[in-house]
Amino acid sequence: MLEKVGNLADRWSDYTGPYPLSYKRDVVWGDCDPAGIIYTPRILDYAMETLEKWNREVLGVTWTKLTQEMSMGAPTVRVEIDFVDAPKPDDKMVSDLRVIAVGNSSVTYGVIGHNGQGREYYRCKVISCYIARPAFTATPVPDVIRRRIDAYRRGCGDI
Amino acid sequence: MLEKVGNLADRWSDYTGPYPLSYKRDVVWGDCDPAGIIYTPRILDYAMETLEKWNREVLGVTWTKLTQEMSMGAPTVRVEIDFVDAPKPDDKMVSDLRVIAVGNSSVTYGVIGHNGQGREYYRCKVISCYIARPAFTATPVPDVIRRRIDAYRRGCGDI
Amino acid sequence: MLEKVGNLADRWSDYTGPYPLSYKRDVVWGDCDPAGIIYTPRILDYAMETLEKWNREVLGVTWTKLTQEMSMGAPTVRVEIDFVDAPKPDDKMVSDLRVIAVGNSSVTYGVIGHNGQGREYYRCKVISCYIARPAFTATPVPDVIRRRIDAYRRGCGDI
Amino acid sequence: MLEKVGNLADRWSDYTGPYPLSYKRDVVWGDCDPAGIIYTPRILDYAMETLEKWNREVLGVTWTKLTQEMSMGAPTVRVEIDFVDAPKPDDKMVSDLRVIAVGNSSVTYGVIGHNGQGREYYRCKVISCYIARPAFTATPVPDVIRRRIDAYRRGCGDI
Repeated sequence: MLEKVGNLADRWSDYTGPYPLSYKRDVVWGDCDPAGIIYTPRILDYAMETLEKWNREVLGVTWTKLTQEMSMGAPTVRVEIDFVDAPKPDDKMVSDLRVIAVGNSSVTYGVIGHNGQGREYYRCKVISCYIARPAFTATPVPDVIRRRIDAYRRGCGDI
Repeated sequence: MLEKVGNLADRWSDYTGPYPLSYKRDVVWGDCDPAGIIYTPRILDYAMETLEKWNREVLGVTWTKLTQEMSMGAPTVRVEIDFVDAPKPDDKMVSDLRVIAVGNSSVTYGVIGHNGQGREYYRCKVISCYIARPAFTATPVPDVIRRRIDAYRRGCGDI
Repeated sequence: MLEKVGNLADRWSDYTGPYPLSYKRDVVWGDCDPAGIIYTPRILDYAMETLEKWNREVLGVTWTKLTQEMSMGAPTVRVEIDFVDAPKPDDKMVSDLRVIAVGNSSVTYGVIGHNGQGREYYRCKVISCYIARPAFTATPVPDVIRRRIDAYRRGCGDI
Repeated sequence: MLEKVGNLADRWSDYTGPYPLSYKRDVVWGDCDPAGIIYTPRILDYAMETLEKWNREVLGVTWTKLTQEMSMGAPTVRVEIDFVDAPKPDDKMVSDLRVIAVGNSSVTYGVIGHNGQGREYYRCKVISCYIARPAFTATPVPDVIRRRIDAYRRGCGDI
């Protein structure tokens, strides 16, 4: 696995911003319910898609690569969401991701969703844990990933 | 609105159990991701569908009725989820709902998902807040709903 | 693979009905959109979940088994849906599956969704094609599966 | 209603291309299933989101406006999908919409999904029908909408 992470490092160019990374996907009709506002679970879809983009663009490690090439995984172990304001169809949604903490195996992310003009929709904290397959047991955050997380946090001014 | 709630009370028979109410919907192929386990946001779908069933069967107030007939709503204001174990396609999922707390306008629910045989999948806390339309501002939990919540909590042995 | 299908045959008991197989999952709030009726793509979710149940209970071959143990797949190649009537939250949905045709590699299914009391919601035709992995090329319907399909069609009175 | 459509016309600027309109949303992890490819029903989500964007940008009539301000609707009455090739997570998805036919109340759309570099993923035909609320009965395509559809078809070189 280390070798594969090494290869990965070779193929990947450092992320150079923007800080924080933003994921933009506007609210669609099918995300909303008969009350006319977003259906609660869809907010978590937005937050997780932001995390997916961050893994691909900042770490250079898509979840496909993590699973298939590195025999690892990063399942979510805890989520907290504050629903600040309820978006409707066609509302702009910009989700910004920052890293709050890095433990031995776990990483804590903060995602804030807003309309790009000061109106906040949600705040989401996600804790994921690196695991090794097939045992599915906790494993340390790989060094190369840890370095990229640190670089990102510096870019964000968070460390 | 009180009159409508009164009519509602007339049409509804007291919930007589089981305690806690369970919602059963097994994990389907489309709920799972390329890692072969449930995609994180789908767990919140299960929890919210449990709450939806509880509103219909315990309160006798579907979200349709709450929205259209009573000009109210009960949007989610906060969610916490602990992902205990990751279910796969065809795994049984039983979600049990209990009421943790009742405030002036808000209600806090606890939903635990398990396989019916002692294997726990998730623990979810949901806080929702009653609002009045069209102002979309917090409004007290209607008395008739509060009484039914209390009866349910007594049935669960929680008060 | 034949050996594995043989093992499968040993573990599986013949499906004994009902004919047609029915899948029941009522319409939930989150399946519906701000117009108050089911969001169009969710109907295809219902049809595919019916097919998933039929694979598990009639063929005795879950999609997990087909993919992981048999190194095969059965991707959908064509779908047709007629939306007869639009269900709303809490509407009962019963989806019945019949097999319309079996080709060399493909199988054509018909799924009809209704409320169990004569009100039809949708008619869906699904054509799937057996493929071999990793080439992902068409492969004949395995004999043991073909026999079970024939038995099911006889049970339905369709052949 | 006509008056409202009139107001609409006043507020809306003619769509000036591109022809055909494209909707871009890449395939995410959660759209895919344990076989590692897109889960069948998600393709219809992509097609419908394309139609939603087209209504907003070409007709100038969001589904929210159609439902709430114009007391109309445009439910889907028939869908056909050919699944040409199965996309995976991170694959680019570009969906192009053209209008195939306009009837008295119905409009037939063709949506083709591809990766922007010649690889086709799906072909979808959608027929929707304008209805009047609350009767939910078929109603003629409003003249102002019909004119904009014709302009779009001319832009695409289809009439």
